[in-house]
This record gives sequence, structure tokens and C-alpha cells, in this order.
Amino acid sequence: MKKIVIIGGGAAGAKAASKAKRLNPENQVELYTKDNNIAVSLCGLPYYIEGSVDDINKLIIRTPSDFLNMGIPVFLGHEAQEIYPEQNCVLINGNHIFYDELILALGADVNIPNIENINAGNIFTLRSIDSGVKIREKMLNSKSVILLGAGYIGIELTEAFIQNGLEVTIIEAKERIASDFDEDFSRLIQDIIVSKCNSKIQTFYSEKAVKITVDENNNFRSLITDSGKEFFADFCVLSTGAHPNVEIAKKAGIKLGMTGAIEVDNRMRTNIKNIFACGDCTQKYDIVTREPAYIGLGTIANKEGRVAAINATCKKEYEVFDGILSSFITRFFDYTISKTGLTLSKALEYSKKVNLEPISATITKKDKASYMPSANEMTLKVLADKRSGEILGAQGIGCVGNIAQRINTITSALQARLTVDDLLHLDLPYAPPYSSSIDPILTAAYKLKEQIKK
Amino acid sequence: MKKIVIIGGGAAGAKAASKAKRLNPENQVELYTKDNNIAVSLCGLPYYIEGSVDDINKLIIRTPSDFLNMGIPVFLGHEAQEIYPEQNCVLINGNHIFYDELILALGADVNIPNIENINAGNIFTLRSIDSGVKIREKMLNSKSVILLGAGYIGIELTEAFIQNGLEVTIIEAKERIASDFDEDFSRLIQDIIVSKCNSKIQTFYSEKAVKITVDENNNFRSLITDSGKEFFADFCVLSTGAHPNVEIAKKAGIKLGMTGAIEVDNRMRTNIKNIFACGDCTQKYDIVTREPAYIGLGTIANKEGRVAAINATCKKEYEVFDGILSSFITRFFDYTISKTGLTLSKALEYSKKVNLEPISATITKKDKASYMPSANEMTLKVLADKRSGEILGAQGIGCVGNIAQRINTITSALQARLTVDDLLHLDLPYAPPYSSSIDPILTAAYKLKEQIKK
Repeated sequence: MKKIVIIGGGAAGAKAASKAKRLNPENQVELYTKDNNIAVSLCGLPYYIEGSVDDINKLIIRTPSDFLNMGIPVFLGHEAQEIYPEQNCVLINGNHIFYDELILALGADVNIPNIENINAGNIFTLRSIDSGVKIREKMLNSKSVILLGAGYIGIELTEAFIQNGLEVTIIEAKERIASDFDEDFSRLIQDIIVSKCNSKIQTFYSEKAVKITVDENNNFRSLITDSGKEFFADFCVLSTGAHPNVEIAKKAGIKLGMTGAIEVDNRMRTNIKNIFACGDCTQKYDIVTREPAYIGLGTIANKEGRVAAINATCKKEYEVFDGILSSFITRFFDYTISKTGLTLSKALEYSKKVNLEPISATITKKDKASYMPSANEMTLKVLADKRSGEILGAQGIGCVGNIAQRINTITSALQARLTVDDLLHLDLPYAPPYSSSIDPILTAAYKLKEQIKK
Repeated sequence: MKKIVIIGGGAAGAKAASKAKRLNPENQVELYTKDNNIAVSLCGLPYYIEGSVDDINKLIIRTPSDFLNMGIPVFLGHEAQEIYPEQNCVLINGNHIFYDELILALGADVNIPNIENINAGNIFTLRSIDSGVKIREKMLNSKSVILLGAGYIGIELTEAFIQNGLEVTIIEAKERIASDFDEDFSRLIQDIIVSKCNSKIQTFYSEKAVKITVDENNNFRSLITDSGKEFFADFCVLSTGAHPNVEIAKKAGIKLGMTGAIEVDNRMRTNIKNIFACGDCTQKYDIVTREPAYIGLGTIANKEGRVAAINATCKKEYEVFDGILSSFITRFFDYTISKTGLTLSKALEYSKKVNLEPISATITKKDKASYMPSANEMTLKVLADKRSGEILGAQGIGCVGNIAQRINTITSALQARLTVDDLLHLDLPYAPPYSSSIDPILTAAYKLKEQIKK
């Protein structure tokens, strides 16, 4: 029997707690979180704001009483202040909580730009149930919104706001939308956004927010950028990314990686004995490059939470987590935008360090047999190394569903380090409603093969 | 410069011809076929019969004049009668055609039950443009149809006929529908068919056709089975499978495999020098079991046609085709039915010969985040070997699109011989419209992992 203390109630913490208890019901497992709920699907918030998820409570996947039923007490509103590794103890709300194993699932916090009036009223971040409710409430009484940041959440919120009749202004410091994609895909995404939102959207790139002005009630009035432009709207949402929450870990001597997140090995162990970390607070490893990476995503948090729990509970049979592919998918109206592995720009950057010669094939092709009335065009870009033939990554845009099918398949190929030769012989199931008889993946592989032969 | 003669104009022959010409435009490439068209998408025929493909010509992917434009003469209505390997010559419509390399893409023929009156009027098979047109014509003037055979084409035609208001009777000699799936999946498929077709369908299993009766015009009247039942309908369609067309190959001394199809190596070479074979006439190799297998599918034909052409054209740089996974997908109304790799029953059979301990996990789970209004249940069965953890196959049923996504992904995993441990760490892209945060594939992998640990 062991006492396992978990700090944080997001995807990683919730998973770690339930897994640790299930592995050995005699373990005393306790979960502490500074928030007022746990196990929330933050990814669902844009759909709640949009209105397609009609009840915010549907996003609460499990409640504290669900955990209590599993034999896990959950302490809401309990913020960990300090860790004393020598004493195997955490200070939480003034109490000393002792542990045999400590699992840190501290999550991430929204990046707040350091500009004047950033804390004024009607400026929101999207990181909790409460903020989702507040944004929806404000949206229903507004005509216009400024989205600061054109990353994934920015794209998802754009659809929510447009569907609710708002005028949307996107302001992004980088030179393009969705800059985790290659430039050609950013352009495709921009085209889709403009075509779907018509005159209801305005996008401004390479514009850095420098100041916010407020009205007499200290509520948001306008945002001023470094080029001197001033943008007005009823409210403003910051979708400026997030950073790992590592303060108490750092203070306790837990080593951070070069990404600023907690450094863990493949068993989710930190440098300090009996302290594990998982989820959005940890540094990841890219499976393709084997380099440190940082990305905060619920799916990864889930896997890491599970691995941390297994290793904290059973010291004999350990479990490892290999790493990530920075896979991503989102829906924008009836489009799917997705990627996995490296982009060409990332691969070219990486090739400066290692012996890699990235090549890519971009194809635009019907997602079903061309004669099927429901066939739509999709664009797929697949990357490989010219020397070894190893697949390096893929990006795709197309109608809902059919891009997911392809990028998911390539995820599997990346995990297995398949080559172009493997990919072009994939025995993908075929019927006219699902693919052309030569699947777009195979077409891309053939195009890569031609480049390799040269 | 070489003269490459191709016999057969289906997916394999058409691909082989165009690839051989493209690899070396100086090659003299000629294509001979007994049919009156080439490069037809036979898989699209059920959708033409149904009516969603509104013009039969849309199923003709390329015409003889397209080929002529590539510099490839196509000879329609030219049936090869005999091959003289010693002379590098084929007898076609009475002419001796000499070759440097011969590529046989002889295709498959429909299995015709050897019963009385089988050649009567209003009995159809579905294997050509002409037969598709005739079936649709007959259907539009009919109220009822008997489908002899409940395999894939039977399922696809059922939807076509039901959508057009017919009463459908399925009669199958085997004890269940879609017997390439495991029994539990046959049951799920049966449930879907009954629920979608209501009183318009009747299914009879373990009923072997023994006789057909005809009316005064020698047209189909009824079908009598071995249990003595008699079934009446306006017409009858045979969907009783197909067998490789190997007659002239066999006569020429080309070796057949244990499946009755032409034996080829992984370069698509037959046992006779300068004779290659590809497509529905060849024996395949199962990637998982490494055993011979037979399945006729356009996607495989395409890949084999390409490999045959490369090896016939360039003797130096050869290309290999590894084998197949017997992947399959079909749409039935708004459902998707798909599989890849081994079923549990196949795996258990195989385990009698080799050291394999098949385990399976079947999960029923929402295909998207459970709070999304468009979420639907899907059932996924994943198989693995308990000893090595290697994934062996998967079957899935669910709403259109989301099963395709999962089975395609597992196809990639099978090709790479991934294990359960690999699968449960797949970094699949996640967003609520596409998956739960723990993808059904991962849930199945976790369930397999639990069984392996025992």
C-alpha cells in the first residue's frame, strides 16, 4: 500500500488518479486541484460557445463524486504552494500533505501579453468552464469581437462567433494563420476562412498588440497594434497560446527542459525521486526528430497520466511513453484541417543538424471515387526523407471526415517509421464512397517515390 | 526498346500499360482485351444501379483513345486464345502477336452455380458496364428481386434495390451474411440490414440453390433451395463470388498456386521467363500470415499492375509487392462496414499451425466526443497475438466516415507489424468532432493490453 498524491485535475491528473487506484485498490490516492472542477473537456468549449453543445455540464466528463465512488478523494480549490522533496511532502492550502509518490499534473496557463489594460473587463481567455460560460454570455449580447491570436483555438472560436452572427477581427503577431502548418497550408486555411465567413471576418497578420484602451467602466474598447492601427469591438478573446505551469516544480529543484516544461524520462519520472510529472506541464519528445518539443493536448496528457500512474504504482513492471507527433485536427465549418509529424519548414530546419534531405509531395484529388456525387477535393502534403525514404509528416485539408482518415493513417506510419515504399503498398480498404481506387495517400507516395528515384 | 504486350484491360492491365509506357516512352506497349471497354470502375456499378451515379459513362475512367494519346494501342474484343512461351508469342483473334515481355491481367469471372436453368432470362451477374445497365433497366420495371449470395456485392446491391422500392430476398448457402467477418460482426451487419430495410427484406441462410424454374419465355420464375423452399421474384442477381481467369495461363504451363490463381513472386513474375501476371488472376500473399490468399480487388490490381510494369520494363531496378491485408470497406445506407487483416476465426485457424495466441478486444463507443450532437456509436474489434503483442487485424461497424478512419489507421499498423504497446501510444490527432479524447483504437488497445498482462 502506498499513498499517491496527484496535483492537478485536468486530463493527465484525472487519468493518473483513476489508473493508480485501479492498478491497486489498496493504494491511497488523493487528488488536489486549484480549480473548482476536474476532468473537464476544454477542447469542447468552442462547441459550447457555438451552441452545438447545449449544456456546459456535458463537458464535465467526471465529477468529484465519481472519483469518490472509485475511492479517490478530490480536493477542489486546493492550490499546492510548495513541494518539500526531502520530506516527501507538499504544502497545500497551508496543510502538509505527505506522499509516497507524487504525480504533478500542473497543466498550462494562457499566455497573457504584457500590455497596458490587459486586465480590463470584456477581455477573456478560454481555459476553464467558467470562461466558456462567460464568453458565450458576452457573445450573445455582442455584435463584434477581436480574436488576438490565429492559432487553433482562434480558428475554432472564429466559427463559433460567425455562426452566432458576430463580426470577427483576427489579429496575429506572426505573418500568417495556423503557423504550425507550412506556408502553403496557411494560405489554404486563410482561403477557407475568407470563403466561409465572407464579409464578416477581417484578418490582420504581422500586427503585434501594444496597447488596449478602455471605456469609462474599465471595459475593453479598442486594441492598438505596433503599426499604429486601432481595432474596436465589443469584446476581445486572447488565443495567444499557453505555457507550462512549472513554478512550484522549479522552486522544488525539479529540472526543466529546454522548452521550459518539466523534463521527464520516458517513464514520466522527474529528476527527483518519487516525483512524476505528466500532461501539459511536461516536456515532450518528438518521435520523428527525437528532439524535445512542447505541446499541450488532452490526448497526450491522457497517455502520460496513464504511464505516470503505472510507474508510480508498480515499480517492477514499468511502462514507457515514446513521444509525440504533434498531431492536430480541427473542423472549420465543413472542412477538416489536420497534420501529423513534421512540416516541410520544420524538416528543413531539422535537416541543418542531421543528415536529412526532406522532400514533399502535395496532391489535390477527390476524396472519393470521382464519379460519386458526394466527392470533394482534398489537398494532402506528405513529407519523406529522400535518402532513407522514411515518412516524416503530413498535412491535409478537405471536407469533414476524409482528411481525418488519411492523417490518422499516416500517424500510424510515422509511429512505425514506415518508408515511402511501405506507404505506396498500403492495403487500404477501398470502396467508391471512401476513396478513389488509388487512395490520395498512395498518390502522394508515388509522387515521393519519383523524387527519390531521381 | 521493348515490345510489351498486356492481356486484359481491367485495373491491373490498364495500370500496367500506362506505367510501362511512362517508364520508357520508346517501349512499344499494346493492350488486348476480350471486353468492349477498358479501365472501368466495376466497384461503382452498385451506385449506378442505385441511381446516385447518374451516367454509366462516368464509370469509364479512361477510354481507348486516352490510351492511344499515350501511345498505347488498345484492341477491344480481342480474346487471347493461346500463349506460346517458347516463341514469345500469343495467339489473339487468330493472329500471332509477338512480345518481349508479356503481362497477363486476365481478371476474374463470376462463379455461376451449376444448376438447372441458370442461363435463363432475367438472371444477371454484375461484372461489366453492360450488366450494370441491364440490371438497372430490369430493376426499374420490377417489384422484387432475389439476390443469390450475401457477400459484399450482395450487400451493396441490397441498398440499391431497397432505395428503388424493390422487395429483396437474400439467399445464401453459408450460415450467415458477410462470412469474411467474424460471427459477431455478421450479426451486427444482419441487424443493420433488417433495421434499414424493414419489411422490404427477407434473408435466408444455409439455403443452397438447387434449381431454377422458368416461365413460358424461358425467363426466371423461381429459385428452389435444398431445403425444398421456393422463392419467387421478377429477376435474380448472382452475387456468388468470382474465381481467377487462368485457363490460357494454365494451358501454357504457367504454374497455379494452391488457391487456383496464378502463382507469382513478389515481382509479379510467373514461373515462365518474360511472363508477368497481375490483378484478379494472381494469387496474393497475406502480410500477416505470409500464406497464400485469394481476393480480387481493384486497389490490389492497381498496385500489382504497377509493380509488374516496372519489373517488365526495367530489369535492373526492381520493385516488389509485399502482399495484402484483405482490407475491405463498404457503405450500407449511413453505416460503414470495414475490416483489415485477420478475423478472430481466421486467426484461430492459423494458430493451429503456428505459435500464435490470438486475443481480441471489442468495444462499442461514441465515434466523437460524447457531448457532440453528431456523435454515434461505433463497434471496433481489434485482434492481437498475446505472446508478441503484434496486431493481427480489425473489424469495425459504425456511421459513415468514422470507421474508415480507424480501419485505415490499423491497416498502416498491420503493414508495420506494430504491437499493442505501439498502438496504445499512437499520437492520433484529436478534436471533439473526430474522436473522443481517448480514440476507440486506443480503448481497444488498452483492453488488449490488460489481456496480455494476465
